[in-house]
Amino acid sequence: MSTATAAEQAQSLTPAAIRAAHELIKPYIHLTPLLTCATLDKIASTPQTASALVGTPFEGQAPATPHLRFHFKCENLQRIGAFKARGAHHALLRLIEERGEEEVKKRGVITHSSGNHAQALALAASTLNIPAFIVMPKISTPSKIAGTRSHGAEVVFSGSTSIEREAVVAEIQSKTNAILIPPYDDFNIICGQGTTALELEAQYTEKSTKSLDAVITPVGGGGLNAGVATYFSDKTTRVFGAEPSFQGGDDCRRGLGEGKRVEKVSTLTIADGLRTPVGVLNWEVISDKRKVEGVFSVSEEQIKAAMKLVVERMKVVVEPSAVVGLAVCLFDEDFRRRVQEQGGEEGWDVGIVFSGGNTTVEAIGKLFS
Amino acid sequence: MSTATAAEQAQSLTPAAIRAAHELIKPYIHLTPLLTCATLDKIASTPQTASALVGTPFEGQAPATPHLRFHFKCENLQRIGAFKARGAHHALLRLIEERGEEEVKKRGVITHSSGNHAQALALAASTLNIPAFIVMPKISTPSKIAGTRSHGAEVVFSGSTSIEREAVVAEIQSKTNAILIPPYDDFNIICGQGTTALELEAQYTEKSTKSLDAVITPVGGGGLNAGVATYFSDKTTRVFGAEPSFQGGDDCRRGLGEGKRVEKVSTLTIADGLRTPVGVLNWEVISDKRKVEGVFSVSEEQIKAAMKLVVERMKVVVEPSAVVGLAVCLFDEDFRRRVQEQGGEEGWDVGIVFSGGNTTVEAIGKLFS
Repeated sequence: MSTATAAEQAQSLTPAAIRAAHELIKPYIHLTPLLTCATLDKIASTPQTASALVGTPFEGQAPATPHLRFHFKCENLQRIGAFKARGAHHALLRLIEERGEEEVKKRGVITHSSGNHAQALALAASTLNIPAFIVMPKISTPSKIAGTRSHGAEVVFSGSTSIEREAVVAEIQSKTNAILIPPYDDFNIICGQGTTALELEAQYTEKSTKSLDAVITPVGGGGLNAGVATYFSDKTTRVFGAEPSFQGGDDCRRGLGEGKRVEKVSTLTIADGLRTPVGVLNWEVISDKRKVEGVFSVSEEQIKAAMKLVVERMKVVVEPSAVVGLAVCLFDEDFRRRVQEQGGEEGWDVGIVFSGGNTTVEAIGKLFS
Repeated sequence: MSTATAAEQAQSLTPAAIRAAHELIKPYIHLTPLLTCATLDKIASTPQTASALVGTPFEGQAPATPHLRFHFKCENLQRIGAFKARGAHHALLRLIEERGEEEVKKRGVITHSSGNHAQALALAASTLNIPAFIVMPKISTPSKIAGTRSHGAEVVFSGSTSIEREAVVAEIQSKTNAILIPPYDDFNIICGQGTTALELEAQYTEKSTKSLDAVITPVGGGGLNAGVATYFSDKTTRVFGAEPSFQGGDDCRRGLGEGKRVEKVSTLTIADGLRTPVGVLNWEVISDKRKVEGVFSVSEEQIKAAMKLVVERMKVVVEPSAVVGLAVCLFDEDFRRRVQEQGGEEGWDVGIVFSGGNTTVEAIGKLFS
């Protein structure tokens, strides 16, 4: 983090910053496809059953009749299987611009992550020929450790809590002077993730004369949602966020209700990429009503139902975190009423970001056994 | 079947017949994507370990060093999730051409299938506004029954053996005079399935100046492989087939060794689309060495390993039957030596047909639990 406050940094998060990020990272990332699926549109445009609304505030009311057409931005097909490749490349390229290649090469970079950011930074560092140290909890899944190592990064193990992880990071930094690349709460990371929105819009407008009505993305640390909201901040497209509700995983939604960022989260939701609280800088963006219209949450069962539909109907592999936005569109009656009321007969074209596809056949088996 | 013998009918199976089929069905089917995957190319181009060859005729020998580049024709993304949509539409369109719409509408069509052909014919009949009767074993998975019904076909249940199924077909035919559309052993079905090859070649040559070195497809009843071999019969591209070896599921490979079609198969291989013996007309094509260079077989474990790679690395959902061709390329040392010897340093560009993607998250769970 630079010395500018989060509020000051948020001022610099502009569509132009996202466009500049895209120019920089374009040669290093995949232009992932934007897919449609008539079957999912049909399911989403069918009213929920009365029984699905039992136990919700909408019990006994007529189910909403929204018309939804989805445009799936498949970041599960991005390099390393997740949008995180965007932010990691952008942060590292900017670091090299700012400090010079020689210094960054000498010091190396470091991060702590058990998930997709670890592999993303390992890939970016390997491509740009920079040494990378990745601090991972000892209990990380072997495939993720192997994946990170396969890009040539040095994996250092730590305990699972953030205090233990940060202690190991500090220890390595004291020896190597390696520069920290944070996973989500960072200006350059946000700009990188926001390039997802730029591509999504360009791919959509290739086939349409109007603008997208809405875009919905998962919210974990919030880098993706903040970046996407930044890109659309001077456009008519509405931006929404989606979170898992399990064990308080919907920290962002709750924080918005209370008018204050929730700082700690401890959830074991199956959407394991969304277990972290929203970062400080990301909160500045997401809590700005002009940028993000609302954040919705879904249950574990709703996440599983959405994942089952994507795997079985679209034949595309997604991780649970990737489908929380789709789950909102399918199952959140509040959201569906909004589409009905604001979209009317014409309905909405909704961009949905499938954030990642890093799962295993064994993990799918456990989820659905 | 017409009164022409299989050998006579095989004479009429020409690339021109496939092209004509494509013209006819094009408006009704998806042009499925042709995908590549650098990770799978790398894995396939890495020699197997010495221990992988233990217990095979290649034990103790140096593993082959083939160079393989794959081009995956994703018929798992075809309508109803499988290439069967091609043959069913073609057979029905030709039937209407030959008998007139009025007669076909009055009599309706009928088939027996527990799998993809049932849904494919149901879809084609619904599109063309023809009544369809689908005889399915009582024990078929509920999702397949529901899928078939969702296209408006009338599902009639039978026992599981072919004798029981055919008895029910005969009974319905005696009442309705419905016309049988067989699942694979039929001239028009073969021409329809062969259109997969036409598209595959066209999509490949958009990006390449040379011809595909080889194409490999699954062999169950043999309609897909016979159609693909027919299309490439006047070209340099080699055609291969792939089968599951479990419980004698490799009837085609064994038949080729014995110089005689194997007429009965009873296997419960996980590649459930490939449990049938090769049909009579398909055998005429596949046993012609000028058309199909060879048929290879793979174990259940090899099928699962290939499926795991496709799901986890390509993030694409395939059913077990779909990956037997890939499994041959990855694990059959005989095939890999052939690539090494004939492809040399340059290696082979291989078209692989992913035949279908109709599985469920629960089925994936059972396979990998």
